Amino acid sequence: MTVAEQIRTIAADARQASFAMARLSSGAKNELLLDMAQALEKQAPGIIEENRKDLLAGEKSGLSAAMLDRLMLDDARVKGMADAIREVAALPDPVGEVTGMWKRPNELMVGKMRIPLGVIGIIYESRPNVTSDAAALCLKSGNAVVLRGGSEAIHSNLVIAGILQGELAKRNIPAAALSLIPFVEREGVTEMLKQEAFIDVIIPRGGESLIRFVVEHSKIPVIKHYKGVCHIFVDASANFEMARDIIINAKVQRPGVCNALETLLIHRDIAKDFVPFIHQALSELKVELRGDDAYRQFAPGAGVATEEDWHAEYLDLILAAGVVDNMDAAIDHINRYSSLHTESIITADYANAQRFIREVNSGVVMVNASTRFSDGNQLGLGAEIGISTTKLHSFGPMGLTDLTTTKFIVYGDGQVRP
Amino acid sequence: MTVAEQIRTIAADARQASFAMARLSSGAKNELLLDMAQALEKQAPGIIEENRKDLLAGEKSGLSAAMLDRLMLDDARVKGMADAIREVAALPDPVGEVTGMWKRPNELMVGKMRIPLGVIGIIYESRPNVTSDAAALCLKSGNAVVLRGGSEAIHSNLVIAGILQGELAKRNIPAAALSLIPFVEREGVTEMLKQEAFIDVIIPRGGESLIRFVVEHSKIPVIKHYKGVCHIFVDASANFEMARDIIINAKVQRPGVCNALETLLIHRDIAKDFVPFIHQALSELKVELRGDDAYRQFAPGAGVATEEDWHAEYLDLILAAGVVDNMDAAIDHINRYSSLHTESIITADYANAQRFIREVNSGVVMVNASTRFSDGNQLGLGAEIGISTTKLHSFGPMGLTDLTTTKFIVYGDGQVRP
Repeated sequence: MTVAEQIRTIAADARQASFAMARLSSGAKNELLLDMAQALEKQAPGIIEENRKDLLAGEKSGLSAAMLDRLMLDDARVKGMADAIREVAALPDPVGEVTGMWKRPNELMVGKMRIPLGVIGIIYESRPNVTSDAAALCLKSGNAVVLRGGSEAIHSNLVIAGILQGELAKRNIPAAALSLIPFVEREGVTEMLKQEAFIDVIIPRGGESLIRFVVEHSKIPVIKHYKGVCHIFVDASANFEMARDIIINAKVQRPGVCNALETLLIHRDIAKDFVPFIHQALSELKVELRGDDAYRQFAPGAGVATEEDWHAEYLDLILAAGVVDNMDAAIDHINRYSSLHTESIITADYANAQRFIREVNSGVVMVNASTRFSDGNQLGLGAEIGISTTKLHSFGPMGLTDLTTTKFIVYGDGQVRP
Repeated sequence: MTVAEQIRTIAADARQASFAMARLSSGAKNELLLDMAQALEKQAPGIIEENRKDLLAGEKSGLSAAMLDRLMLDDARVKGMADAIREVAALPDPVGEVTGMWKRPNELMVGKMRIPLGVIGIIYESRPNVTSDAAALCLKSGNAVVLRGGSEAIHSNLVIAGILQGELAKRNIPAAALSLIPFVEREGVTEMLKQEAFIDVIIPRGGESLIRFVVEHSKIPVIKHYKGVCHIFVDASANFEMARDIIINAKVQRPGVCNALETLLIHRDIAKDFVPFIHQALSELKVELRGDDAYRQFAPGAGVATEEDWHAEYLDLILAAGVVDNMDAAIDHINRYSSLHTESIITADYANAQRFIREVNSGVVMVNASTRFSDGNQLGLGAEIGISTTKLHSFGPMGLTDLTTTKFIVYGDGQVRP
């Protein structure tokens, strides 16, 4: 069989296995996941041995130290993977939930019931823990999953997937409920993206170039997240200390992630006092500020923000900063440059807080909180399968229920349409 | 400007207008719709005059009588369009609904709020009433809409869209909140489908070939419905009269629609009695039966069902019929051939009813009811924007809430992430 034929077979088998997955009880799924967690821990030495092959190959091919660190597995990390599976097992099962039911004039009872999406394709980069994390979320929500990890982690991913599949087999669940594409060539991705007859959705997890590649080539719907250009707007009524603490947390605590702050907007009425205040606080923490004219008027040491800076996801200790005339201007700026990820207002004004919540339509909209909370775990969804910055199906951080859909259920007693 | 440039401008203007639409109150949207309804009625003579041009062109180009009838507008039909808009005005506004809210351990209040999708593209065929129906649903749910109707209805669509736009202008809402692509060339569709920067979702309404064309060419997510191969399974415990009445209603009442019955499955335990019973009843109503071997054993007059028949959406007085050994076989058959539209079981058995509801994952799953109820209006959604037979975002008949998504809203009082 060619690579294309093998991938088609994997996808077709996954579709078939998805019917079995959809029928599993919550109890059966939880037991399966707990057994998978235990199996990973038990077989940690084998996992670490295979992982060493990836590390050696990575060193030879000149991967950066940061990449090698992402790739590396040790006992503690394997235990972390097992614990993450146990956390998913402990989450409530979304499948079967009836989200509403109503009676029609003809006495038909009509409701909506949550069901699995079917087959979920996950395409990801170097971290091998995604193999077990994503598998656990997809299986818990009653789906079959087709995984395609980064080529640099192929040995690690194959051994992890094999261990998890072993637990499926013990319970007479088709092994195809969890598949890993075993090919490291790009063809492994492009062929997978053609299986629209068998795979219901693709969730890419990785950098912008991976995601753009997937979107460009996929015949299957993609839930995607390009980047996070998160804004904080400091309203005229903001408490300066609260604003400072939130801005520092959002920018400095972990600058390399998508929910870090990238653009700061300040109300003109407080610019004279607040700009020097925040500029000093951020400068002390080695944050490079790039301001518009009004910002630099009150913080002459700041760099110059160009049009490019308003679009930038720095993922670094750099911050674009501008002064806006009022709420309208702040919202207009956000509408124009937003990546639809996360925006926060710092305000003591009730009406402005409510207006910001209502009128800013990003995936997560906050009042008086750090953008760093924009994360499935932090928002209370349990483990996160990804984050969507497009509005169809899911918007914002995605948890288990985002791996489901709803069908209509109708209970009748012989009704026909007149 | 080229056609491509003009369409890009239309889409970009629609995106800008969508921000204004999203901010409109429910009251303002309802008043707008009621004024639109009135304006259509007032200007009925002008609409009918433009419609006559389409009819004349259609006659010249040899449109069928059925097509010409679909295209034709008279006073009653214009009044029907106005009434349909009023019905949409009377529906509850989904925008702003908070579908859930919870408190995190750090006292953050986290909720999900319904918001418009943004810009919705509707691509449809000859019926000019879709222009006002679809516009009303999109505007009511706070979206901007870009319409592209069939070339044969271009004069009718332009005059209708113009009248509706006039009401937007009176209320200082950007006219681009409702646009109609004025080009009859195919390029009008293909260029529209490239505007992924401005249009959030495409909903095609029409035959399978239109939908396949749209899916093939779209860079924008498409919510689609290819066909309805609806099944009824008559369980061993079924009441024969109830089964007969439902089957006749589902097959005969309006055979040309997507929720009509196309495949009948009968439990083997009752085949000997039920097959002759239903065969006679359907034959009297001029339904052509195509059966498998077991069906024809008890109804020798039936035709032969081939593999093709199990996939067929006849949209005609033809029915494929088969005998299955049990529930498992019925569900397997449905999983294999289903178009994911609508399936119904006729049964008196509680456990089988519940199992069918749980395990059959089509958009609409019924017990003891006619598949003809699979329709947004009939299920209580109010007006229907379309029907989805794919699981992402929406599954089954779609109403107003399917034109929205949810964002996370977070109320804090200074929380930062530790």
